[in-house]
Amino acid sequence: MPRLIEPAAPYDGRQSETALFVARGTRRLLRRLNFSSVTELPLLSGRRADIVALADDGAVLIVEIKSSIADFRTDAKWRDYRAHCDRLYFAIPETMPVEIMPADAGLIVADAYGAEILREAPEHRIAPATRRAVLIRFAHAAAHRLHGLSDPEAMALGVYG
Amino acid sequence: MPRLIEPAAPYDGRQSETALFVARGTRRLLRRLNFSSVTELPLLSGRRADIVALADDGAVLIVEIKSSIADFRTDAKWRDYRAHCDRLYFAIPETMPVEIMPADAGLIVADAYGAEILREAPEHRIAPATRRAVLIRFAHAAAHRLHGLSDPEAMALGVYG
Repeated sequence: MPRLIEPAAPYDGRQSETALFVARGTRRLLRRLNFSSVTELPLLSGRRADIVALADDGAVLIVEIKSSIADFRTDAKWRDYRAHCDRLYFAIPETMPVEIMPADAGLIVADAYGAEILREAPEHRIAPATRRAVLIRFAHAAAHRLHGLSDPEAMALGVYG
Repeated sequence: MPRLIEPAAPYDGRQSETALFVARGTRRLLRRLNFSSVTELPLLSGRRADIVALADDGAVLIVEIKSSIADFRTDAKWRDYRAHCDRLYFAIPETMPVEIMPADAGLIVADAYGAEILREAPEHRIAPATRRAVLIRFAHAAAHRLHGLSDPEAMALGVYG
């Protein structure tokens, strides 16, 4: 039943099972910290964030998953995510060398069962209008996906169909 | 697989299959109108809204489902929902007499496959802080439920567990 599983990363051939495990463990950590999270959220820039997490006070985190050195090195634009969140983290598996990860972003090490924050991310508060836009995108994405699981026929309706 | 089905109303013995059908049809209508929606959202007041719907511009609707005359008559406090939304609707099955429904709320007639707005709801814009609070609750509820479907073990973590 593949459509009942919420993919943790786009199935575009680049994403590995490792990335899916890292996403699962990271989301468990986020939940423990009382954040809710969604995967693969399209941002206003057109890029997709691997994980976006939301706190009770409206704080927004983005976590980008890097499952291999090659995966990290090909992403020249990771700083763009900063415009859409208050804190930016990378999440990596234990097999990744910690020292190649940029010191000016947060760092999470994860496996399939959990995760740990190795380095806190610097805070760069987004503007209220941006927060509102990210929050509405987050809410729409989560609600539409959930609705689609309970009523698949509803997915053909509306511009999000 | 009951836990994969998102209930449209609390399973507390009062809710009928009719109410579930009305919820399904109403959510299809909302989606056609480009709203996302969640069911059973706990509000700040402690009450649960049957359906809360969100528009791209952040507008919030509440739809209360009334599947029988008795169901409507026992709800003396429906006006309380106004404090948490910009527009309030009732959704009823075709078997309900339209004339007993209050003229100062919107009215939707629904079956399991779709719905129609019989009367538009008057607008009473909520304060920005209230909108923000409802939006965060909506986003959290949808994301947590979706997360729980992909990783049931995560549900025991965090205050929302």
